[in-house]
Amino acid sequence: MLAASPPSPVWNRRRNEKRRRIELASHLASGRILPTDQLTAALEILIAPGDRVVLEGNNQKQADFLSRSLARTNPARLHDLHMIIPSVGRPEHLDIFESGIARKLDFSFSGPQSLRIGQLLQDGCLEIGAIHTYVELYARLFVDLTPNVALVAAYQADRHGNLYTGPSTEDTPALVEATAFRDGIVIAQVNEIVDDPSELTRVDIPADWVDFVVLADRPFFIEPLFTRDPRLIKPVHVLMAMMAIRGIYERHQVQSLNHGLGFNTAAIELLLPTYGEQLGLKGKICRHWTLNPHPTLIPAIESGWVDSVHCFGGELGMEAYVAARSDVFFTGRDGSLRSNRAFCQMAGQYAVDMFIGSTLQMDGDGHSSTVTHGRLSGFGGAPNMGHDPHGRRHASPAWLDLIQTDSLLARGRKLVVQMVETFQGNGQPTIVESLDAVEVARNSGMPLAPVMIYGDDVSHVLTEEGIAYLYKAESLEQRRQMIAAVAGITPIGLRHDPASTAALRQAGLVALPEDLGIRRSEASRSLLAAKSMAELVSWSDGLYQPPARFRSW
Amino acid sequence: MLAASPPSPVWNRRRNEKRRRIELASHLASGRILPTDQLTAALEILIAPGDRVVLEGNNQKQADFLSRSLARTNPARLHDLHMIIPSVGRPEHLDIFESGIARKLDFSFSGPQSLRIGQLLQDGCLEIGAIHTYVELYARLFVDLTPNVALVAAYQADRHGNLYTGPSTEDTPALVEATAFRDGIVIAQVNEIVDDPSELTRVDIPADWVDFVVLADRPFFIEPLFTRDPRLIKPVHVLMAMMAIRGIYERHQVQSLNHGLGFNTAAIELLLPTYGEQLGLKGKICRHWTLNPHPTLIPAIESGWVDSVHCFGGELGMEAYVAARSDVFFTGRDGSLRSNRAFCQMAGQYAVDMFIGSTLQMDGDGHSSTVTHGRLSGFGGAPNMGHDPHGRRHASPAWLDLIQTDSLLARGRKLVVQMVETFQGNGQPTIVESLDAVEVARNSGMPLAPVMIYGDDVSHVLTEEGIAYLYKAESLEQRRQMIAAVAGITPIGLRHDPASTAALRQAGLVALPEDLGIRRSEASRSLLAAKSMAELVSWSDGLYQPPARFRSW
Repeated sequence: MLAASPPSPVWNRRRNEKRRRIELASHLASGRILPTDQLTAALEILIAPGDRVVLEGNNQKQADFLSRSLARTNPARLHDLHMIIPSVGRPEHLDIFESGIARKLDFSFSGPQSLRIGQLLQDGCLEIGAIHTYVELYARLFVDLTPNVALVAAYQADRHGNLYTGPSTEDTPALVEATAFRDGIVIAQVNEIVDDPSELTRVDIPADWVDFVVLADRPFFIEPLFTRDPRLIKPVHVLMAMMAIRGIYERHQVQSLNHGLGFNTAAIELLLPTYGEQLGLKGKICRHWTLNPHPTLIPAIESGWVDSVHCFGGELGMEAYVAARSDVFFTGRDGSLRSNRAFCQMAGQYAVDMFIGSTLQMDGDGHSSTVTHGRLSGFGGAPNMGHDPHGRRHASPAWLDLIQTDSLLARGRKLVVQMVETFQGNGQPTIVESLDAVEVARNSGMPLAPVMIYGDDVSHVLTEEGIAYLYKAESLEQRRQMIAAVAGITPIGLRHDPASTAALRQAGLVALPEDLGIRRSEASRSLLAAKSMAELVSWSDGLYQPPARFRSW
Repeated sequence: MLAASPPSPVWNRRRNEKRRRIELASHLASGRILPTDQLTAALEILIAPGDRVVLEGNNQKQADFLSRSLARTNPARLHDLHMIIPSVGRPEHLDIFESGIARKLDFSFSGPQSLRIGQLLQDGCLEIGAIHTYVELYARLFVDLTPNVALVAAYQADRHGNLYTGPSTEDTPALVEATAFRDGIVIAQVNEIVDDPSELTRVDIPADWVDFVVLADRPFFIEPLFTRDPRLIKPVHVLMAMMAIRGIYERHQVQSLNHGLGFNTAAIELLLPTYGEQLGLKGKICRHWTLNPHPTLIPAIESGWVDSVHCFGGELGMEAYVAARSDVFFTGRDGSLRSNRAFCQMAGQYAVDMFIGSTLQMDGDGHSSTVTHGRLSGFGGAPNMGHDPHGRRHASPAWLDLIQTDSLLARGRKLVVQMVETFQGNGQPTIVESLDAVEVARNSGMPLAPVMIYGDDVSHVLTEEGIAYLYKAESLEQRRQMIAAVAGITPIGLRHDPASTAALRQAGLVALPEDLGIRRSEASRSLLAAKSMAELVSWSDGLYQPPARFRSW
């Protein structure tokens, strides 16, 4: 548990230190079970000042009993921790920096806490190690960020420490493996402890990798992050979805793909059984997916569009539906979903034809970022999937279709699609002269601007105006013209000479809806296979059970 | 277990089919244990014609009892299998194509069998799905290549099916997870079955993921692929290693890295405690490693150079040494190594500063390949690690050091170093006008040439002549000149005007040994920290136990 140090004849200092701490805490525990009311005291023994602690704050599930308990430890005993948190999502993740319990932070995503991270950084309460993508952060756990302690969450444990992480497995296996196999201490909070191993729903993580289990004061917090109410899908989303299906999915024969959580992609999912069916595309596109169990994918699944879905995490309310559709989803012998963010990100990077995402800002070169002033929101997983992986060697029709030369030394290319409205809901342009991220980097002394997706990795930009086929651009200047041609009345769009759009259309570099055989007047909500949460429930045969806040009945 | 099909009200066909087969085979089994002499009969029941079967042929360990038994099944019962084999290393991997048991092959690497794959392809006995890198192949198991059956190898099992994969965990977790959670059948051969779960060394794969265990007729085959006898390191390797340390490792402050299995990199490992020490570099470079437990790394470890090593797989003979150095290696609670190719490849891609590799052929643009006429040798893991991952967002000094602009919109770059002698041992030039891979692709109708590493991903080329700092090249033409400048008397080198080398050296684009303060006469084997296997054993305090064929005592 000590940091790197000069050579020494002792080669198992980490193991000895782990043993020492576990012995010190043994009077609090009953075997591997820590009593709920002793957790804070146990953390003060099992963690040491300066430790690297990986805390399971995920995109969705949160080891929040552990994080709340860590925040209650005595900063005189526990201080200067180096926290590694994939997703900084809860107030206590940052409270520990204010109190001095923690000092340094490595993370990937910080949606709701992004403003406060910026403030703490300015106030000198917090030092950033680095801002990562998810996969990159897991990778460093095996290299130079090996944790001394892992604090993770699971649904169930038995008294030996076997864990059931179930539908929301997410990041847990990666965090536990890196810690357990380098003599770190693994502590899991669970919603339930079963007495007999045979009562455990299934074993996702073997007891050999787990040191302590604690029954949480309440079930771990989990967020239905990927649920989009079809009621909020607007005609412009339908128009853009139609353009995507015709101008990208059909054109390049996209078989395998990832969708994020936007309303644009939700609209695509809901158009497959209607518009996609009319175009005769069933079985030809969108067969294999890497994404969470989106409720808006239910109509496409029920209509037979979907062969397989591998998930990063689960989605609240989708448990029974997923379990009843085991031909489509990855499930265990017990029937419940198996998710795994590390493998799903790997699949989203290397095994799929297309990534399609959205952004808050894109500049005229195609660089995009979700960082705005004062907010350090991080990267999440988008850059893993939203780039062209040069390490890929297998071909697929879509991948080959983007090659622009006859040379056998060319390589194919992943489709990386930016699907954005030219203006945000607040009236701010999406396509801008310069990313806020550049100024943020300059002001806060970052070595590089926090760019989510670089322009040279983007193959297509799709706006409500049209599609720019950037992979065909022969120069940076031409790429700029193509983006400007679909940038509407944003500053970048206004700089563009409309006369040149005709030439770009002629050359097949840009397509407007009419070039794709789409009439804007057809883009109506009536095309959506489900127009409300109730209709999604109905499609699912009553198996989907939306969280209360999504119910209007 | 059926392929994709039209919509149907039945959503658990895979699960039903799995149950059906397991029931059919139940009379052969005792619980989850298949008798050794019943394996072939069981495979004929548990596998169906046309199935996708993933077989653990790895870089090192081989599920060879399973593959030999599969080859003994009756082709009238079992035929047209679609085999997925990470590393095609054994004759029976291909025998099944000759006999008609298998038809289609997806793989990553095929060292010793590469010529025969080419012949079978020409004879029409074998159809290639695709040739992948390792990570890419695992990724597709979760997308469009989900297996119906997995055939894997482990050291031990208990009677429930819990597996100990131990020092040679390698690919097993990825293959099993993709199969077990999509209602595939997982069959593991083991060297030992223990009666009581408490006798199992440790649980690496939970019994919930495993359907059948069979005691193999003999321990699984394993190859000490990463053992390099220091006796075979030549002075030219020492020279190149000195250049690498001074001109690349020191210059860019390379902290974390991957080494492959060549004599060049073995020489670097053996120079760290001598030449590296003289340069005062200990603690400044080479602290974190992603590589197998190379015996030639022992002197550097013993001298305190190495903070951590995460491994793809194990290495025969290194078991006791690794177990005794748990501060450095990833080990389990039982003390033995934990390797994991999926995570180590991910770390090698995203978390390290540098990949350094070798190749059989490189062209004047820097493209390289190990494919030569008639051989389909595959990619292995080199392209995963030997490219600049555009999805990386965290900075390190080495990564930032390769930026050639002041723009905040630049990104850092991974060091991808090609370290090659200008001529191969057989007198053939390494640096060639055109890769054999191009002609192979043309002749066999491949859509693209099987390039191992593309020129635009290579940051440095190091030969016995000098180092070309390709990341500084401002044009393809300049990159060509730089490669030619270090290409010696190969055809590419002879095309180069020696006068321009001076200009390239002046501009810092190329460095000769003397530019790095290295005299060729200093490059002697006497600099090696160990000059023989016996000296490695001695460095290890007798813990390293080389396989018999490496022993001369």
